[in-house]
Amino acid sequence: MADLLWQKPGVAVDAKIQTFLAGDDVILDREFFLYDVTASKAHAQGLQHIGILSSEELDGLLRELDILADDFRSGAFVLDERFEDCHSAIEARLTERLGDAGRRIHTGRSRNDQILVATRLWLKDKLLRVAELSREIAKVALDRAEAEKDIPLPGYTHIQRAVVSSAGMWWAGWAEAFIDNAIRAHDTYALIDANPLGTAAGYGVNLPLDRSHTTEALGFARMQISPIYAQLSRGKFELAALEALGGATLDLRRIAWDLSLFTSGEFGFVALPAQYTTGSSIMPNKRNPDVVELLRATHAAVAAARTEIEQLLSLPSGYHRDLQSSKGAIFHGFGRGIPALELLPALLANLEWRDDKLRAAIDSGMYATDVAVEAAVAGVPFREAYKAAAASADTAGQGRTPEGSLAARVSPGAAADLRLDELRTRWAALV
Amino acid sequence: MADLLWQKPGVAVDAKIQTFLAGDDVILDREFFLYDVTASKAHAQGLQHIGILSSEELDGLLRELDILADDFRSGAFVLDERFEDCHSAIEARLTERLGDAGRRIHTGRSRNDQILVATRLWLKDKLLRVAELSREIAKVALDRAEAEKDIPLPGYTHIQRAVVSSAGMWWAGWAEAFIDNAIRAHDTYALIDANPLGTAAGYGVNLPLDRSHTTEALGFARMQISPIYAQLSRGKFELAALEALGGATLDLRRIAWDLSLFTSGEFGFVALPAQYTTGSSIMPNKRNPDVVELLRATHAAVAAARTEIEQLLSLPSGYHRDLQSSKGAIFHGFGRGIPALELLPALLANLEWRDDKLRAAIDSGMYATDVAVEAAVAGVPFREAYKAAAASADTAGQGRTPEGSLAARVSPGAAADLRLDELRTRWAALV
Amino acid sequence: MADLLWQKPGVAVDAKIQTFLAGDDVILDREFFLYDVTASKAHAQGLQHIGILSSEELDGLLRELDILADDFRSGAFVLDERFEDCHSAIEARLTERLGDAGRRIHTGRSRNDQILVATRLWLKDKLLRVAELSREIAKVALDRAEAEKDIPLPGYTHIQRAVVSSAGMWWAGWAEAFIDNAIRAHDTYALIDANPLGTAAGYGVNLPLDRSHTTEALGFARMQISPIYAQLSRGKFELAALEALGGATLDLRRIAWDLSLFTSGEFGFVALPAQYTTGSSIMPNKRNPDVVELLRATHAAVAAARTEIEQLLSLPSGYHRDLQSSKGAIFHGFGRGIPALELLPALLANLEWRDDKLRAAIDSGMYATDVAVEAAVAGVPFREAYKAAAASADTAGQGRTPEGSLAARVSPGAAADLRLDELRTRWAALV
Amino acid sequence: MADLLWQKPGVAVDAKIQTFLAGDDVILDREFFLYDVTASKAHAQGLQHIGILSSEELDGLLRELDILADDFRSGAFVLDERFEDCHSAIEARLTERLGDAGRRIHTGRSRNDQILVATRLWLKDKLLRVAELSREIAKVALDRAEAEKDIPLPGYTHIQRAVVSSAGMWWAGWAEAFIDNAIRAHDTYALIDANPLGTAAGYGVNLPLDRSHTTEALGFARMQISPIYAQLSRGKFELAALEALGGATLDLRRIAWDLSLFTSGEFGFVALPAQYTTGSSIMPNKRNPDVVELLRATHAAVAAARTEIEQLLSLPSGYHRDLQSSKGAIFHGFGRGIPALELLPALLANLEWRDDKLRAAIDSGMYATDVAVEAAVAGVPFREAYKAAAASADTAGQGRTPEGSLAARVSPGAAADLRLDELRTRWAALV
Repeated sequence: MADLLWQKPGVAVDAKIQTFLAGDDVILDREFFLYDVTASKAHAQGLQHIGILSSEELDGLLRELDILADDFRSGAFVLDERFEDCHSAIEARLTERLGDAGRRIHTGRSRNDQILVATRLWLKDKLLRVAELSREIAKVALDRAEAEKDIPLPGYTHIQRAVVSSAGMWWAGWAEAFIDNAIRAHDTYALIDANPLGTAAGYGVNLPLDRSHTTEALGFARMQISPIYAQLSRGKFELAALEALGGATLDLRRIAWDLSLFTSGEFGFVALPAQYTTGSSIMPNKRNPDVVELLRATHAAVAAARTEIEQLLSLPSGYHRDLQSSKGAIFHGFGRGIPALELLPALLANLEWRDDKLRAAIDSGMYATDVAVEAAVAGVPFREAYKAAAASADTAGQGRTPEGSLAARVSPGAAADLRLDELRTRWAALV
Repeated sequence: MADLLWQKPGVAVDAKIQTFLAGDDVILDREFFLYDVTASKAHAQGLQHIGILSSEELDGLLRELDILADDFRSGAFVLDERFEDCHSAIEARLTERLGDAGRRIHTGRSRNDQILVATRLWLKDKLLRVAELSREIAKVALDRAEAEKDIPLPGYTHIQRAVVSSAGMWWAGWAEAFIDNAIRAHDTYALIDANPLGTAAGYGVNLPLDRSHTTEALGFARMQISPIYAQLSRGKFELAALEALGGATLDLRRIAWDLSLFTSGEFGFVALPAQYTTGSSIMPNKRNPDVVELLRATHAAVAAARTEIEQLLSLPSGYHRDLQSSKGAIFHGFGRGIPALELLPALLANLEWRDDKLRAAIDSGMYATDVAVEAAVAGVPFREAYKAAAASADTAGQGRTPEGSLAARVSPGAAADLRLDELRTRWAALV
Repeated sequence: MADLLWQKPGVAVDAKIQTFLAGDDVILDREFFLYDVTASKAHAQGLQHIGILSSEELDGLLRELDILADDFRSGAFVLDERFEDCHSAIEARLTERLGDAGRRIHTGRSRNDQILVATRLWLKDKLLRVAELSREIAKVALDRAEAEKDIPLPGYTHIQRAVVSSAGMWWAGWAEAFIDNAIRAHDTYALIDANPLGTAAGYGVNLPLDRSHTTEALGFARMQISPIYAQLSRGKFELAALEALGGATLDLRRIAWDLSLFTSGEFGFVALPAQYTTGSSIMPNKRNPDVVELLRATHAAVAAARTEIEQLLSLPSGYHRDLQSSKGAIFHGFGRGIPALELLPALLANLEWRDDKLRAAIDSGMYATDVAVEAAVAGVPFREAYKAAAASADTAGQGRTPEGSLAARVSPGAAADLRLDELRTRWAALV
Repeated sequence: MADLLWQKPGVAVDAKIQTFLAGDDVILDREFFLYDVTASKAHAQGLQHIGILSSEELDGLLRELDILADDFRSGAFVLDERFEDCHSAIEARLTERLGDAGRRIHTGRSRNDQILVATRLWLKDKLLRVAELSREIAKVALDRAEAEKDIPLPGYTHIQRAVVSSAGMWWAGWAEAFIDNAIRAHDTYALIDANPLGTAAGYGVNLPLDRSHTTEALGFARMQISPIYAQLSRGKFELAALEALGGATLDLRRIAWDLSLFTSGEFGFVALPAQYTTGSSIMPNKRNPDVVELLRATHAAVAAARTEIEQLLSLPSGYHRDLQSSKGAIFHGFGRGIPALELLPALLANLEWRDDKLRAAIDSGMYATDVAVEAAVAGVPFREAYKAAAASADTAGQGRTPEGSLAARVSPGAAADLRLDELRTRWAALV
C-alpha cells in the first residue's frame, strides 16, 4: 500500500490488520471515484476564493483532476489495493503531479466530508434513476391499461377467485403504484439534496470556507448547515434512499408474484417471451420464468442493505469507522434494485395474455357480488341480498358474461370508469 | 362471538380455530373504531347520494353512529371478543338499532376498504404527530443552540477526543436533524393522503359510488383511484409511515447514546433531573438514566414493526389475510415511538451541562488541527503542516483556550458561524 | 404505584416519566410471575443454607410464596400498574405478610438475576413446546407419507410442472423437516439450560450463595458460572430461542404457501375442512383459507421479535434498561409462533387430496426426465439423451402413467424408496 | 458465454437478460468450485457402482477432476463470465477432455443437488472455523482471567459505576460466552451434516443411486433422506449457520463496545497496540481504534445476510431461482464474520490494562452494596440495610479497598470464586 496519510514515524503497521481495515473499501470506492474528483474540483475552487490556493495552483489542480478522471475512465489509472481509499489516491496523484498544490488541496476538509459529499452525489443519481424507471414502468402500465381495458381477468383475494376483473384494472393498479414510487424517490432526493462538503471532520474548521460556492457548483439545492448533522446524516440518508428504492422493489416483488402464478401451468394466464425463461440441467421439459423469480428476490437485497446500515447505526454522534460498511450496503441494494427495475418496462410491454385461460378461470360464483348489489339497488337491504346470493352463488353466472360484469363496474377507479386521465395527469406532473 | 357476517348454514365453526383467526384483532381494532365510525358516516352519505339510502335512513345512521362513538368513548360500548372485528360490531349495532338501514350500510363496501380507510386516517394522525413533535424538538434545540453557543464541548470522532466543539454546535445538529424529520413526516403524509374508500374488495363495485364526496368529507387530498392499488398500498403505506417515524427514532437513538455517555461517571458532562433516573434493587448507590436507555431502545420497536410487515408482504396482488398482522405492527411501532418522542422536548430542555467536566475533557491535542490549518493559511502546504502538528500535538494547546478555538471556527455552520437564522427559516416553514 | 424499592427521600417522581418507564412492563410480567415465585423459593432455601434466613423464616416464605402463586392463579392477586414489576410485587407482598422475612429475601440477589432466571425458565418451557409440537407434526407427516405413498402429485420447480411426484414424498419432506426442528429446539434448550440465579447485578455478591442448590432445585442442567456472562446472555439466549422457533415457522411458512396454492381454484389439489375457511363481508361466493394465510404470516412475527432484540443489543457488557424490551419481543414471537404450530397437526391430519385434480395436472412433459434417464441407462450419454428428450418432451408421456413413474423412482428417498423407517428411527430418538 | 446446457434450438437469448440472470453468480461460484469438484468425484464413483460409468470412464473423470482442481488453484483455469455457473463449467471441461464420459457425469443429478452439496460442504467448513476460533478466543480469555484475577476493574450497569469488579471476572465472562459459541457452532454443524447429493431436482430419479457411498465419501454424518426436504433445507440451513455465526458476532459486538469505551480518553482503561489504531486525514492528534469499530460493525453484515435469505424464503416448496441470492448472502456474512473473529485472539492477548485509570474510576459508592450485604449478614433485614447504605453511599468506601471488596466476593462465579476449573473443563470438552 502507498504511504498512509496519517502514518506516524516509528509505528509499525501490521499487514493482516491493515487488510482487515481496508476490507474491499478501496474497491468499493471505484463507484465514488469520479464523484470525489468532481467534489475536489469544487473544493479547490473554494480554497482559491479564500486565498489558500493561487490561481495557478487551482488551474493545475483542475487540469490534473480532469486528466485523472479521464485516466480512471479509460483504465489508465486503476484504483486498487495500493491505496487506502479513493481520497488518499486522489491526493497522492495530485501531489505526485503538482507538488505543493497537491499538498494543499486537503486544507479545510476531511475524508469525512469527502466521503459524505461523494456518497450524497451518488445517491442523488441513483434516486433520479429510480424515479425515471418508475415513470417508465408507469407509462407502460398506463398504455396497456388503455389498450386492454376490456380484457376480462379473474380477480382474486386470498388467491381465491373473487369477482371478474380486467387487464385494464390490473395495469392501472401498477401505474398508480409506480407513479407513487416516482414521487417518493423525488421526495427523498429533495430530502438529501444538501451539501455536506465544508463540514470537515464534523466540527467545521478555522477557515471561512466558501461553502456557498461548492453548494452551487455541485448542484445541491441547499447547504447542509450543521457539521454535526452532516455526520448524523451518514447512514440516515442512505437508509432513506434505500427505503425509497424499497417502495419500488416491494411493488416489484408483488408484480413478480402475480407473474409467477400467472405463468404457472395451473393459471396459464400469461406467456412470457422465451428470452425471459431458462431451462433445467436435468429436466428436458422445463422452461422456467427465472427472470421473474430474480425480480421477486430483488427486494430481499434492498432489505439486507437496510438491515446492515440500521444495525450498525446504534452509535453516539460523530464519525465512527463502523460507518464504512454502509458503502457496500448501498452498492448491494442499488446494485440489485436498479438493474431489476430496468428490466421491468420491456418485460411488462412484452408479456402476452392467454385469453382462453383467462376466460376459463372465471366461474359462476364470481358474479354473486354483482347479483347481491343489484338486489340492493332494487331495494333489498344488502345484508339480506348477500345471504340470498350466497345461497345461490353457484348459479350466479347464468346469463351473465365477463363483459357485462365489467361494463357495470362503474364505481370510480373500477373497470367501467378507470379514470386513466387522472392517472395520466399525475404521471405527467412527474419531473 | 356474535354471528359472523359470512356464516353459512350448516358449516360448523371450530372455537379453537376461530380463536386463532381472531387473535387479538378485535382488541387492536379499538384503535380504529372511531375512524371506522367516521368513515361509515361518509360512506352512508355517499349511499344516500346515489339513492341506496333514503334521507331518513341516512339521518338515522348518522345519529346512531354518533351515539355509538359517544358510547365507545364513555365505555358504555365495549369492543371485545363478542365481535369478529370493529367493522362487524358497527354493522351489528346499526342493524340492532335501525333494522334495514343497518342492513343497507355495507352496500358497495367491503371490510377490505373499511380497514384501509380507517388505517389510513390513523396513520395520517400519527404522522402529523411525528411532524409536530419533531418540530418541538427542533425548537428546543434551536433555542439552546442560541443560548449556549459559547459553551465549549469536547468534539469526538470514534469516541476519541478530536477538536474543541461547542454546545451550540451540538444543539444545532439536532435542530437540523429534527427539521428534516418533520419534513419527511410531512412528505409521507402527502404520499398516503389518498382515499381508498369505495374500492370495495379491491375490484370496485357495480354502483356509481360517490367517492368524491367521501374523499372530501374525510379530508383526503385526493382519491386513491385504482382499487387494485388500494390493496397494494396496504402494508406499503404502513412501511412508509414507519420509515418516516424511523428517521426520527434513529436520531433519537443517537442522541440517547450521547446522553448515555455524557451522564456516565467517566464523561460526566450532563446532569439529568432526578426524575429521569431510577435506582437499583440491590445497589444502594445507583441512580441510572433509565429514561435515556428506553429512548435508545425505541428504534428497535420501530424496526421490529417494519420487519413484521415487510416479511409478510411477499404476496401476489389482492387482499390476503396475512395482512391482518400489519395492524399490531403499526401499533407497536407508533405506540413505542410517539411516547418516546413526546418525552424528548422536556428532557432536552432540562438537561444541564457540567461546565467543569466539559473543560477538563479538552486536552492539548484537540488544538492540533487549528495549528495545522493556521500554518496552511500562513502558506505551509497542509499535508506538511499536518505532519508538523502531529509531531507536536501534545503541546498544541499552549496558550490556547477553548473560547479562542471556537471563535476562530468560521466555516459556515461551525461554532463561530452557526447560521441559526437559516435553520430558523427552515423551521418556520414547517407546517 | 406502590413504593419504589429504590426510592430516595426528597426525590420527586414524575408520573409521566414513570409511566413511560413502566410501559407495559408489569403487565408483561404476568407471564413470568409464577416462574419468579418458583425461583424465589429456591433462593430463599439457599439463603437459609447460608444462615441469612432462619428455618422459621424460610418456612414462612415458602408458605406465603405458595399462597401467592395460588392467589395469582385464582385471580385473588392481580399484578397490575400498582407495582413497578413482578419482582417488587412479590417482595412487597412477602414483607406485608411476614415483615422482616420479606425484607430479607432480596439478600444477595438483584432484579437483574431474578428476571434472568424467570425468563430462562420461561424460554425452556417454550422450547420444549416447540420440540413437542415439531414431533407431533412430524408424526402426522410420517403417518400420511406411509398411507399415501402411492398417490401421485405433480412435482414443481419454479412453480412450474417438473416431474411426477407423490403425496408420500411431500409428506416425508415435512416429516424430515420437523424432525430437524425438534432437534434444534432441543439443542437450543441445552444451550440455555444454565442457571443465572446467584449472579446478582452481574458482579456476584459478598456472600457464599448456594448456587448449586438453586441450580438443582430449579431443574437446570448446570450453573451459568460467570455473572458477567449471565448478563451477556440476556438477549443472546432470547435470540437463540427465537431462532430455533424460527426454523419451525419458516417451514410452516413454506407448507402454508403450498396449501395456499393447492387450495386455489387453479390448482385445486387440496380441500380443507370448512372450519379452516372464512367468508367475505361483501362477496357471497367466497370461502377463504384464512387459517393457512395466518399460519404463513406467523414467521413475520418471529422475525420481528428477533429484529427488536438484535437491534437493541448493540451495547457494552453489563445490564442496560434497553433490555427490558426483550420481554415483549419474546412474548410476541412465541405468542404467535406456538399457537400456529399447535393448529398444524390437525390441519395436516384433516386435509384431503382431490385426486382428479392431481392427475389432471400431470402432463406429458413431466415424464421427459424419466425418458432421458432411461436412455442414459441404455448407454446414451446423458447430455445427448437430455437433448433428445427435450426435442420430444411433448410426447414423453405416451404409454406412461404416474404410477409407473413413481414405481421406477428408486433413488434413496424418492417415491419408490422413501426410507420412512430411517425417518421413524430418527423420530423415535427425539426425547 | 459458453453454450447453455439447456439451450433449445431456435430460442433467442437476450444478452441483457442473460446478464441479469447471471448476476455475479459465476464469480461467487469460485468459492464453491473445489467443493463441486469433490462432490463430482463422489457422484462419478456412485455412477460407476450402478453401471452408468465404466471403470475406465470413472478413472478418466477422477483424473480430469483432479487436474481441473489443480488448474483452478494455480489459476490455469479461470471461472468467469464465459460460463453460466461452476456446474456447467465443470461438465463442459470434462466433456471437452473426455467426450462421452463427460456427457455421462450429469446422469441422475441436477444442478439443484450439486449446489446443495457444495454449499453444505462450504458451510460445514465455515462452522468448524467458527467453532475453532471461538475456542481460541475462550482460551485467551481463560488464560488472562487466571493471570489477572486480582486486577480491580470498575463494574458497570447502565454504563454507570456499580460495584468493584475484576479483570478476572471480565475475562471469565467472555470465556464462558465463547465456549457457548463453540458449542452452538458444533450443534449447527451436526444439524446440517446431511448429504443432499442424489436428490436431483428435488424429486429423486429413476436410478438406484449409491447415496450411501457419496454420503460416506464426502464425510457426511448421514444422508438427507427426502429430496423434498433437501430443497426445503436450502436457505433454512444457511440461516441456521448464519445464526450460529451471529451468536459469536453478537458477543463480538459487545466486547468491541467495551473496548471502544475503555479506549476513550474518558475511560482510558485499555491501551491497544499501535497497529490496531489509525490516524485522521485532517486531525494530527488522532489515533483511532478503527479495528475495534470494524469488529463492532461485523454483526451488521451477518444480520444483513440473514435478512436477505429470510426475506426471499417466503416460497412454496421446491426450487425457485430466488434462492440463488442466498449464495452472495452467506459469502457476505461469513466473509465478514470469520476475518473479524480471526483478529480477536491476538487483539485480546495484546491489550493492556492501565492500572491507574482503573483504580481512579472506583469511587466510594461502589462499596455500598458490600456494606448493605454485610449488614444483612449481621442480621439487619436487607431492605433496611439497603436504605441505610443508600443514605451513606458517599462514605461507603471509607477504609475499604478494591482488593478487599474482591476478596469478599465469594458467590460462585464472582471474583473470589471464579471457578475457572469448571470453565476449563467445559472448554476442554470442545472438539
